[in-house]
This record gives sequence, C-alpha cells and structure tokens, in this order.
Amino acid sequence: MYDIIILGGGAAGMTAAIYSARYNLKPILISENLGGLIIDAHKVENYPGLNKLSGMELMSKFEEHVRYFNVEIKEQSVIDIKKTKDGFLATTNKAEKIGGKAIIFALGTQKRKLNIKDEEKFSRKGISYCYTCDAPFYKGMNVAVVGGGDSACAAARLLSEYCPKVYIIAKEGLGGEPYNISSVRSKKNIEILEHVVVSKIDGSKMVESVTLSNGKRLDVRALFVEIGSIPSTELVKGVKVGLDETGYIKVNDKMQTNIDGIFAAGDVTTGSGGLRQVITAAAEGAIAANSAFNYLRIKRENPKI
Amino acid sequence: MYDIIILGGGAAGMTAAIYSARYNLKPILISENLGGLIIDAHKVENYPGLNKLSGMELMSKFEEHVRYFNVEIKEQSVIDIKKTKDGFLATTNKAEKIGGKAIIFALGTQKRKLNIKDEEKFSRKGISYCYTCDAPFYKGMNVAVVGGGDSACAAARLLSEYCPKVYIIAKEGLGGEPYNISSVRSKKNIEILEHVVVSKIDGSKMVESVTLSNGKRLDVRALFVEIGSIPSTELVKGVKVGLDETGYIKVNDKMQTNIDGIFAAGDVTTGSGGLRQVITAAAEGAIAANSAFNYLRIKRENPKI
Repeated sequence: MYDIIILGGGAAGMTAAIYSARYNLKPILISENLGGLIIDAHKVENYPGLNKLSGMELMSKFEEHVRYFNVEIKEQSVIDIKKTKDGFLATTNKAEKIGGKAIIFALGTQKRKLNIKDEEKFSRKGISYCYTCDAPFYKGMNVAVVGGGDSACAAARLLSEYCPKVYIIAKEGLGGEPYNISSVRSKKNIEILEHVVVSKIDGSKMVESVTLSNGKRLDVRALFVEIGSIPSTELVKGVKVGLDETGYIKVNDKMQTNIDGIFAAGDVTTGSGGLRQVITAAAEGAIAANSAFNYLRIKRENPKI
Repeated sequence: MYDIIILGGGAAGMTAAIYSARYNLKPILISENLGGLIIDAHKVENYPGLNKLSGMELMSKFEEHVRYFNVEIKEQSVIDIKKTKDGFLATTNKAEKIGGKAIIFALGTQKRKLNIKDEEKFSRKGISYCYTCDAPFYKGMNVAVVGGGDSACAAARLLSEYCPKVYIIAKEGLGGEPYNISSVRSKKNIEILEHVVVSKIDGSKMVESVTLSNGKRLDVRALFVEIGSIPSTELVKGVKVGLDETGYIKVNDKMQTNIDGIFAAGDVTTGSGGLRQVITAAAEGAIAANSAFNYLRIKRENPKI
C-alpha cells in the first residue's frame, strides 16, 4: 500500500513525486512516457534557471531529481482505477495491482495531430505543437499556423510579432472568440487561408514549404499545429472525477478534485488560468502533493473521518 | 514608457521578466534584493531539475536567465506608485520616475524575526525561517520551533517525522486551528513549552543549544522561527489593490488583482493555495506575465476600452 499513486511522469507528476518524498510519504509514480509532452520541444527557454536545453534534457534532470529521492517508478500504464475501503486500487496494462491511499492525476494532454504523410518525420524539424515554446526560434522567417480556433489565433498573433509573414490555414474558417478573430484579421502580416488543408510537407531536413489542398504552395520554415488538445482523462471517469465542459479535470487552488483523496496537476487540469507550461505543471504538482500530504495526515489522525 | 514594470526580483519577478521578454514586450524589473527570500536557504532540494544547490546559486541561475533576454534591471526600490492616464508611474528611492502600461507586484514577504542577540550570526547555521526547505537536513537531530500558530504547528509536525525530539517554544501558548493544536499535542516526540521565549542561542559555528527565559537549556541543532510573515504590500495600498484579511494581495487564477492593469505573483499573493515555494512563485510569475500580455494586447487593439 502506497501513500500516493502518481499517474503521469511529466513535469507535474515528477514534481508531485519530489514533494511527496520530501514530505516523508511513500509515493509510486506510474508512467510509460517519462517526461511527458515537453520532450517534443527542441529547445526550452522558459523554464527559469535552466535555459537553452531540449525538452528531453530538461525532463532528464527532473527524472534524476525524482530518482535522488528513491521514488519508485513503474514504467507501465494504468488501465483501471477503483475506489476501495482504504483508498484506491490501480490496475496496470501488465495486470499488476497497486494500492494507494491517495491519487494524483497528472496524465497531461495529447496534441491533436494533422495525420498526414511526413508529419512524424518533420516533428521538431519545423513542425511544432507548442507555439509558446517555439515561436521565438522562427524570428525573421515565414511560418504557417494550422487551425481556426482561439489557440490558432493566439499562435498567429504571437508569431506575427516575430515573423514577416504568418499564414493561418483554417479548414473550417476562423472560429472562437470574436475578439480573437478580429484581432487576427487586423494584422497586416497575417494571411488567412480558409477552407483549405495542408496536403503535403516538403523539405530536405527541415520544413521548407507546404502545399495546400487547392494546390497553392507556401514557402514557410515552420508549421504550428493548433487544432486542439485532448486531455487524458479516460481513467478518471470511472471514479467520477468532475471535468469542465472542455474535458479538463476541475480543480480548486489546492488542486483538489471533487473526489476526496483524488488530486490532479498539470496540463490535464483547469488550473493556472489555463496557461499550460512546464513551470505551471510543476507548481501544480507541488501543490497537489502538499494537499495529499494534508489529506493523509488528517485521515491518519482522525480515522473516523 | 515600459510595457510592464515588475516590482520584485525573486523567483516570481524574475520569471515574469523571462515570460514578458519572450512575449516580445518591454519589461523593466526593479529590485534592490535580487533573488528574494530564498537566498537565505542553505540548500534547495525542491526546485525540480536543479537539485542540491544553495538558494543563492539557484537565484543566480534565474538572474542569468533574465539577463539572457536583455531585460533591464534596476537595482533600486520603488517608494511610490501612481495611476496615470496611460498606465502607472513608479518613483524610486533615487527619485527616478519610471512609466509603465502595466504592473506586476512580486515583492514577496518578510519573515518575522526573533530580534534577539546572535540571530543574524546563526542565520543559515541552525536558524531557519523555512521549515519546508530545511526540515530534511536535520534528520535524526533534536530541534526546536519558535511560534504558536498554524505554521509553527505545521513545522513541528513535519519535523516530528524526521527528528527524535521537537520542542515548540510558544510565547503565548498554542493558537490557530484546533485541529492543528490537537494533532501537535498527540505527538509523543513533540514537547510544547508555553509562555516562554528564547533568550540566548549558543554554539561554536552552528546552533548547539538555546536557553529559554525560564533558564531551561535545550540541546538542539536547529531553531525554526515560525512567528509569521509580513507580505510586502505598503506600495499597493496607494493604488487600492485589494488584500485578504491577512494582508496578502487577492488574485484570481490568472493572477489578476481587482485593479485593471495590475497583476501580482509570488509569496505576496493568495495564489497557489497558500503554498509559498520557489516553484509556485515562478509559476505565478509566468501566469501574471501572460495575463499582462493579454491585457496590453486588448488595450492596444481597442484603444477605447
């Protein structure tokens, strides 16, 4: 029986592990993808104190930090969670059963992909799924954003401050907040291409151009894919954790969910005002561990509660 | 005229500077104490990715990161802030006037000190003002906590999991939440000494013992001072920023205060569920910068608002 089962091995899960260990608890971290989404970033410049390293390098440092505290890490994925008398029971894809008194959900999100040829090949070589991470690296170059919602608009706006020309490729036209749309339309260096999709990506090593479904070719050095994220919440549904209307786990400022003993942290939550960054995920992991620590203490000292 | 005036040079202010610069804004960071309170910590083990360094070293890395983005840093302190037609005007202790369109308050807190002889001498040499930072370093040793409120109880409880004996020295007896008090009273290795104060601290290089006002001597290796913090909010009162009943700046999850164009981050706020750590301060700095960026964008594009 562990004190805390931490699901997810990104910045949130690993920070929750570090804090749990320092609170003298017995945590287990379960993740098949140590490092999380950020390992796709070719350069991270916005994690304070550790500048100019790859997402992979940054997350290796997190992992080293977790291992320093001898936290048990299980590289499996959890496929089922049940409430038990004493807490929770997680079942992994290898049929292992793991019991814990509290749970921290930190399974993050997955970025929606284009699902076209060569997308994988150019990933981190011009194709980016994180404009906040990567925009500054394309200063002075022409770029394109795929998507028509608020995050595509936000990406285009930020990129328009760095890049001479920004294309928005919006399959179904621009949607989202009217303000966002008009702000994008008013920018002279943003060109909106509606009702087309990307059909081909070309380049020798890095992206050099993309071809659209109408045959038009755009000479761009980067393609920012902003067609939405999918919070990884399949598992929480079984234990009735509350989600907001867009599917993220609802948390308060202590990272408590609506279920006693279940906390959540990182990109999968509604926390941090919706800004989903390594630094905010890590902070939420620390807060979730602190809340779990207080929860376990109160439970231990008042067994009747 | 700067886009953002950042007041405070701790983890929150420096992260706000990094994010502001990456949003292509023109920030200025004003602080006479670059690094903030954490530079008192002799070892930091809970900032993910950077393990086992001093608070001073950690904050040097933050500063280097800020300087990499060429953020202007002014090592003065602001003594007055006024609302102007276009934003805000800050006056420094050297009578410089600095205009900005938005403000991020990140002035942190000051720990209340004992104000007794040799307190300064033993600071970081047995006297600690941060039990979450330092508790694990005194594993196996006898320690004392000064204070009678919730944070003193929390410190004693955490220390009781590491240390054979924990004294609480509570001048006015134990106060705070009844639950906290009873939980401390039920611990066998916590001894509560009420209606006494520390009158003397002894040791060759590190703390070795303390003498109380009743003449009793305690052989302890550390003295955790938990007699409260004072949020640094003198400046915000002039611009009518709302505080909570304990004096911290009230923020929502986007680090907005009640005043348009004024944001706050770090230990001085009510954010992060009250967990005041380097990682949470940094995250709040990032969120505040993002919110200031959105505020300035909306203002720029809709001058009538």
